[in-house]
Amino acid sequence: MLTIDKVRDAEDVLAPVINNTDILHMPINCDNDIYLKTENLQITGSFKIRGAYYKISKLSDEERKRGVIACSAGNHAQGVALAAQKYGIPALICLPEGAPISKIEATRSYGADICLVKGVYDDAYQRAIELQKEHGYTFIHPFDDEDVIAGQGTLSLEILKDMPDVEAIVVPIGGGGLISGVAFAAKQLKPKIKVYGVQASNASSMYNSIKEGRAIRLASVNTLADGIAVKQPGELTFDFCKQYVDDIFTVNEAEIYTAILTLIEKKKMVAEGAGAVPLAAVMYNKLPISHKKVCCLVSGGNIDVNRLNRVITQGLLNTGRRCMITIQLKDTPGQFSEAINCIAKLGANVISAQHERLAANGDIDTCYLKMELETRNFEHIESIKATLHGNGFNIII
Amino acid sequence: MLTIDKVRDAEDVLAPVINNTDILHMPINCDNDIYLKTENLQITGSFKIRGAYYKISKLSDEERKRGVIACSAGNHAQGVALAAQKYGIPALICLPEGAPISKIEATRSYGADICLVKGVYDDAYQRAIELQKEHGYTFIHPFDDEDVIAGQGTLSLEILKDMPDVEAIVVPIGGGGLISGVAFAAKQLKPKIKVYGVQASNASSMYNSIKEGRAIRLASVNTLADGIAVKQPGELTFDFCKQYVDDIFTVNEAEIYTAILTLIEKKKMVAEGAGAVPLAAVMYNKLPISHKKVCCLVSGGNIDVNRLNRVITQGLLNTGRRCMITIQLKDTPGQFSEAINCIAKLGANVISAQHERLAANGDIDTCYLKMELETRNFEHIESIKATLHGNGFNIII
Repeated sequence: MLTIDKVRDAEDVLAPVINNTDILHMPINCDNDIYLKTENLQITGSFKIRGAYYKISKLSDEERKRGVIACSAGNHAQGVALAAQKYGIPALICLPEGAPISKIEATRSYGADICLVKGVYDDAYQRAIELQKEHGYTFIHPFDDEDVIAGQGTLSLEILKDMPDVEAIVVPIGGGGLISGVAFAAKQLKPKIKVYGVQASNASSMYNSIKEGRAIRLASVNTLADGIAVKQPGELTFDFCKQYVDDIFTVNEAEIYTAILTLIEKKKMVAEGAGAVPLAAVMYNKLPISHKKVCCLVSGGNIDVNRLNRVITQGLLNTGRRCMITIQLKDTPGQFSEAINCIAKLGANVISAQHERLAANGDIDTCYLKMELETRNFEHIESIKATLHGNGFNIII
Repeated sequence: MLTIDKVRDAEDVLAPVINNTDILHMPINCDNDIYLKTENLQITGSFKIRGAYYKISKLSDEERKRGVIACSAGNHAQGVALAAQKYGIPALICLPEGAPISKIEATRSYGADICLVKGVYDDAYQRAIELQKEHGYTFIHPFDDEDVIAGQGTLSLEILKDMPDVEAIVVPIGGGGLISGVAFAAKQLKPKIKVYGVQASNASSMYNSIKEGRAIRLASVNTLADGIAVKQPGELTFDFCKQYVDDIFTVNEAEIYTAILTLIEKKKMVAEGAGAVPLAAVMYNKLPISHKKVCCLVSGGNIDVNRLNRVITQGLLNTGRRCMITIQLKDTPGQFSEAINCIAKLGANVISAQHERLAANGDIDTCYLKMELETRNFEHIESIKATLHGNGFNIII
């Protein structure tokens, strides 16, 4: 059975290895006092090193000698690889072959052997189980393990030390290992504290399971928050959540994008989708935390930059700082230049423009100008549209 | 004359207001041990609050009563606005009208009045001087002021406390206020320490001035690093640099982009152009720091997200994770689909595609397919090109 002494032991074991990450104030317009525990700035870019390192520290010499194996699409892989490297034991990590090259390379850089498995995460997991049976490796589960949960629980010790008057902690949930450790340790030390979980609405396995009172398996999960895209809660973690978590909420993809963009703009830091869901839940008023001092866990920052770029673009569109506009031009010389001049005068910056002649509608004299613009805000977009309209241009979209 | 006691006094004044920002290890492939002082995570998103707040703390009651005025396109504006707000005195900030809305809004959010001036920074500066004369406001210079320099110097006290064995500090230079304070304080406490300055090669006013032995005014400055785009060093700061700075180096725009992308990927943090120049200088081996323990100052993180998006895109292109490719298609049904199938099989993701028929070269049977792809690395791009070529497609670019 997990005890607070075990979490304290994990804290001692982890102390020389990990950072006690900063807790930063987050200035957002709501009636709460919001702080961020910045585990995106943790070594390996996420909290996962805590559980993985503590688990490996607890293995017997014989278990270590056999080497460790893990299956992960990202953060757990890096945590296990670095922990194994520090203990000088071999590690084999199964990854689905479509995993972002940046995560594969990071895992390899910690000295782990990589086994790329055709298919998706579940295929990689099956392969890891096969390899474990075949070679006798020690399997390091990403969440359904008491030592791993104890390691993640060290976060609550740090939060309560640095922020003794915290009233609520908000935590992302995937398999449930992180929130199990955080909720257990926090409630042992301060029973009145509230611990809330947040899932992506497209991957709400723990949310559904708790509501129905039994572990439910989702047919599919599809979210930017790949770190918490888990089809089914663990057995242990389901029990911990039932006992220690006050409530669970969900956020949608657009809410996650906006939270990531807000962290970049207001706090100059990059969160991955999973790391942004607690803040998203706060920003969109999902939680019963009025006038409370709240700590949101930013669990990790390992987001592929290609995806980050698309998240930023979508966030810009959602907040009026990017706009797509299509206007109709008469087919006479000077129309294109007149439209472009209008836009230049209004201070919008052209990202791309396409001048097209569409035959499908039968009007051979009509052209269309499709543009992507950098704009200041929604009022700016409206003033551009109004000016174009006032100059006789028909705005299609 | 500036003294180390004045810098210590600034430290005491600033202690309740600012964060002692973390110093984080930066794992990059070079023979040095590199650390980052993360002033991008400072309140207001840059170090500028240090000098501005200390300067305002030193004003007489009478000077405060008159209110303060400053001119800035960004970080100094936010520093002065917040400092004035904390002292309960009125602040008027002149900004060029083209300043990013995000910086204008941030300055306004600290309670300052904003005066948007038609034209560029120099026009805003002229207007600030006029307004100061007209209304008797107290002018807060962004760099050429001993109190401001003392405030920035507090950074060295923090660095030497948290990293007593540091051998070199690398600092961005714009007007020179930051490096004047940092170099002065560091050399007082540890004379053997090296302090190096870095400028953008497109805005190398201090670099040129020091090399020529007199303050030189550049005709124009044009760099992503707007925080250090200063045409002419200050008088005071020029003297400080002559006396205390060991050497100055420059980095180009592409080097700055790559440093920003590296900070996002490896450290999950956002730096503005000015904040990334010290790391860029280290990454591109500009500095004589072999086998040294080095602290790079990440001076700020206030970059407009529209620009950040373009920096990331350019960084992806520079590192083989984005590619533009144009191939020639024969004008027969099935060619488009065959090319797209090739690319899908090789695991590249299509961002955009244009299928065009160009009449200019006279061959009416030829089409072109222009695509933007998400790729894994340069080898991946080569394998895509080789496969397309092997399937009979002519690759134009």
